[in-house]
Amino acid sequence: MARTPVWKSIAIALTDDIGQHRYQTGDKLPSEAQLASRFGVNRHTVRRALAEMAEEGLLHARRGAGVFVASRPTDYPIGKRVRFHQNLGRLGRTPAKKILSMETRAAGPREGEALDLDPGALVHVYDGLSLADDQPIALFQSVFPAERFPDLPAALTETRSVTAALSRCGIEDYTRVQTRITAKLATATQALHLQISEGSPILRTTGVNADPDGVPVEFGRTWFAGDRVTLTVGEDGDLG
Amino acid sequence: MARTPVWKSIAIALTDDIGQHRYQTGDKLPSEAQLASRFGVNRHTVRRALAEMAEEGLLHARRGAGVFVASRPTDYPIGKRVRFHQNLGRLGRTPAKKILSMETRAAGPREGEALDLDPGALVHVYDGLSLADDQPIALFQSVFPAERFPDLPAALTETRSVTAALSRCGIEDYTRVQTRITAKLATATQALHLQISEGSPILRTTGVNADPDGVPVEFGRTWFAGDRVTLTVGEDGDLG
Repeated sequence: MARTPVWKSIAIALTDDIGQHRYQTGDKLPSEAQLASRFGVNRHTVRRALAEMAEEGLLHARRGAGVFVASRPTDYPIGKRVRFHQNLGRLGRTPAKKILSMETRAAGPREGEALDLDPGALVHVYDGLSLADDQPIALFQSVFPAERFPDLPAALTETRSVTAALSRCGIEDYTRVQTRITAKLATATQALHLQISEGSPILRTTGVNADPDGVPVEFGRTWFAGDRVTLTVGEDGDLG
Repeated sequence: MARTPVWKSIAIALTDDIGQHRYQTGDKLPSEAQLASRFGVNRHTVRRALAEMAEEGLLHARRGAGVFVASRPTDYPIGKRVRFHQNLGRLGRTPAKKILSMETRAAGPREGEALDLDPGALVHVYDGLSLADDQPIALFQSVFPAERFPDLPAALTETRSVTAALSRCGIEDYTRVQTRITAKLATATQALHLQISEGSPILRTTGVNADPDGVPVEFGRTWFAGDRVTLTVGEDGDLG
């Protein structure tokens, strides 16, 4: 019978230390040399254990500074009903939104296609920042058909909630038609807003929400800080 | 009524050029100076149009070399039934899998938990590379309970298909319990296998497949080249 490899036993022991709060979020782990001495192995073995734990998202290395216990990423369900406040509220985190800009202009080709608009139709464009417990987790841009919802910008400015603002405009329910997900690197501007480094991993989602008749009401793009958010699809993802 | 901004008209014109195959995948676009001259605008305006198109994934810039027409990423549906061959086949791309390693060893803590195994239970671990039309698109690691499926490694080696191999072991159907998605940066090893640069964006998914009784049969992790794949959830995502 195969034995548990030594590096894996070390990963198990250190994971257990973190689980027992012997090391807390943000704590620096002992050096590779100290860990090698504690477990009676060479540094190469310690390094393999730490690499595995970093891959799991338990640790993150800062060049020249050492290895730290990572804060657990926020789970963010992607399903039929994607609701920012509700998603974070269920996880016991306090959601907030900051408005970066609100403008009304002609729809671009991609926007017009997603919202099924005539060429030259106007859209409201809402750029903002989503926060959880005061930590920025995502930038977003939501685009709405302006002719159908003339009062939406006022409602968004007041409520800061897409769900509440659309409700004021007569849309009691909406569902996600499709979500598309890619990985990108943070640009300088995105990094500044999200308080991460330029070139950090970004999860970008693109989605269309439609009213109960299937008419598109929102075309949205979101740039999540990759280290702070895990998107989930399925069981807990409200696909029902 | 708001006019279409000039930079957006340029993006529309260039997008149309690409749509009409005036510029093909991999082609270098004219320089910013040439485009500025063609459209009678300054370089700043051209730059904004190109930035927007890069954000849409239509273009990619190579430092010092210019701006190129990007190959369109492969759509990869994430839903209740995630089947590699079927997903790519439907898109008219030829799927292939390369086996990197196959081993049987004791389950790690994360693997044991995901597969609901007793401590010390053995698992088969299948590491491989997924290709579409000979281009590497993802690295994957699939972990299976060894006691339940003693003949699985042989079946995997022969068929290279998880669905076919599980079927030989008596599992006629399986469904995805949950998929978790994060963004990462490619490590040196991953970059080598995927033929991308170290530090490129990676979409990492983690998922558990279960048999019709809800018993886990596979714990899988996949690292997609972010520039080559868009994960899709919803309408076309086989959630039914």
